[in-house]
Amino acid sequence: MEVAQVLHMNGGVGDASYANNSLVQQKVISLTKPIREEAITSLYCSTLPRSLAIADLGCSSGPNTLFVASELIKTVEKLCRKLKHKSPEYRVFLNDLPGNDFNNIFKSLDSFKMKLQTEVAGGIGPCYFSGVPGSFYGRAFPNQSLHFVHSSYSLQWLSKVPEGVDNNKGNIYLGRTSPSNVVRAYYDQFQRDFSVFLKCRAEELVQGGRMVLTFLGRRNEDPCSKDGCYIWELMANALNDMVSQGIIKEEQVDSFNIPQYTPSASEVKLEVLKEGSFAINRVEVSEVNWNAFDDWNALDFESERSESIGDGGYNVAQCMRAVAEPMLVSHFGEDIIEEVFSRYQQILADRMSKEKTQFFNVTVLLSRKD
Amino acid sequence: MEVAQVLHMNGGVGDASYANNSLVQQKVISLTKPIREEAITSLYCSTLPRSLAIADLGCSSGPNTLFVASELIKTVEKLCRKLKHKSPEYRVFLNDLPGNDFNNIFKSLDSFKMKLQTEVAGGIGPCYFSGVPGSFYGRAFPNQSLHFVHSSYSLQWLSKVPEGVDNNKGNIYLGRTSPSNVVRAYYDQFQRDFSVFLKCRAEELVQGGRMVLTFLGRRNEDPCSKDGCYIWELMANALNDMVSQGIIKEEQVDSFNIPQYTPSASEVKLEVLKEGSFAINRVEVSEVNWNAFDDWNALDFESERSESIGDGGYNVAQCMRAVAEPMLVSHFGEDIIEEVFSRYQQILADRMSKEKTQFFNVTVLLSRKD
Repeated sequence: MEVAQVLHMNGGVGDASYANNSLVQQKVISLTKPIREEAITSLYCSTLPRSLAIADLGCSSGPNTLFVASELIKTVEKLCRKLKHKSPEYRVFLNDLPGNDFNNIFKSLDSFKMKLQTEVAGGIGPCYFSGVPGSFYGRAFPNQSLHFVHSSYSLQWLSKVPEGVDNNKGNIYLGRTSPSNVVRAYYDQFQRDFSVFLKCRAEELVQGGRMVLTFLGRRNEDPCSKDGCYIWELMANALNDMVSQGIIKEEQVDSFNIPQYTPSASEVKLEVLKEGSFAINRVEVSEVNWNAFDDWNALDFESERSESIGDGGYNVAQCMRAVAEPMLVSHFGEDIIEEVFSRYQQILADRMSKEKTQFFNVTVLLSRKD
Repeated sequence: MEVAQVLHMNGGVGDASYANNSLVQQKVISLTKPIREEAITSLYCSTLPRSLAIADLGCSSGPNTLFVASELIKTVEKLCRKLKHKSPEYRVFLNDLPGNDFNNIFKSLDSFKMKLQTEVAGGIGPCYFSGVPGSFYGRAFPNQSLHFVHSSYSLQWLSKVPEGVDNNKGNIYLGRTSPSNVVRAYYDQFQRDFSVFLKCRAEELVQGGRMVLTFLGRRNEDPCSKDGCYIWELMANALNDMVSQGIIKEEQVDSFNIPQYTPSASEVKLEVLKEGSFAINRVEVSEVNWNAFDDWNALDFESERSESIGDGGYNVAQCMRAVAEPMLVSHFGEDIIEEVFSRYQQILADRMSKEKTQFFNVTVLLSRKD
């Protein structure tokens, strides 16, 4: 599996699209707003850029894609009013892998920009948006061309499936039964990937530039603990059930591995310290329910959406489908997809009725050292 | 009709896609290569940029999209070898309206970049590609951020259908029977649009920056002469035949207007002089057969493609379909499309068997004055 070709959220705006199933990711972005506000405020006040370059790495395609940019621009405009500064020019770079549905983003840009202009009293500075396709585990921008880098729920994705995980029987990611060499392989891949990421961004950011990075992570220091692995373990259960019923082959499941690593806060910090280009300004851990509807006031949603709030299994299965379907299709083919997610939904609903199920998030605010 | 929403080449890579029906545009790009070489050479030698920013405006989606960038990069690399300079960094901005199939371009970028690296002995400088959606009849890039602007077969498209062309009965563009107020309206719209274009680019280009612009244009000074209008007149014939057979309504054809103006070289020059920001370094007029296969050596093509070379009517109808289908669908609906292009193909084949049918191109090389 070539991750850069296969890893992308479901495109379009249909029922199974990421655009319609990204409430968890939206909730996480809203939880981490205070850190971004702190970061953009200190960045603006210390560098006073006339042209502010912001990159969102792993921007995906949906309501979340432009949300962070609009929020950052609004914060800067507020600062400009307060300090009686002229608005800067904004350059917003939306980055994701080439399989991302950029067309969908681009079609919404004009109305987004018009809306943003009306939402800020007095209007905003000129905004230039562009799409930058490519892996962030490599250089994606020119030297010292960025002031602010944001990435949410993307950096847990690895550049590839780690090598030497063939003996991870019955699992599709790390799990309680994973052998120690497999655990090591996943962690090594995370270290290599994240250190390359830091090195590249250090070259692309101006001195004093800020990064706010949020990982899908874990609280527990054990990489095989439930909080980082459970969601995939239950998907493996669905696949293993299908193996036992002869619908798919055992070898197919054994050779399917999710290119992900959900790090703990200390693992993230350790890589930043080792790489050395960035100062750590803040580290936060937060959590969000698997069924993100639980976290929101039901009244915030239109009736159509509210009806489905109760069905947590469906919501979580759809959320995971929007994220994982392209990878599953590439490995198992189209035909089994409905069956996998139907079984997964039932398993999820059962577990969620019996225990508290949450994603854990690790957020760091870093600044480029001089 | 909102031109910015509706005007885009057919996406994807299917039979009716622009990607598979853009040989005329490719031929035009190859005809104008010497002008681009002159432009990039003089630009490089006079400014010696360490980071070279190139924009292709109206880049579309297909084999032509990345062709110009690769050719320009190769020319600069040759210069660097000759002058014993280190390669610069390249920033390539691909611009088109938001309906363009950027996804298709982005998926081909990685293999394109790898190929380019191997084609140039010693490799090339780092390349950063991005997609910039939006109309070029407005600001699309930050102040003084570009060194080189290229646009081929895009600037004949107007920002909108001119106002006051209701009495252009039986035509879908200018034609021999167009009333003088209609001719005036089209020309006025061209003047307004092109002058806005020049003003915006003057702000975006650095001093000494170059532009190479190729218009689908005309030789004759009369805007209603055959060389600028005939291709649309024959499409109007197909539509009018369908009106007379009761398949579509006369009002539908009367209210359908192609947002285009095919200027003469002197009309282009006049606007540049009036606007005042650019020096005119070169003006060239060229021509290309409607059936671009006529212009190429059949041996250059694989057998599959060669078989269709003879069917000029088909080739030209497909070329025009790739360009005009989204506009026709938006106005007339999906249902009549096959019928329109089947009739159009027959009309084209008949005319092409009886007369020499050519597109005329106007190319200008401009440089941003100090």
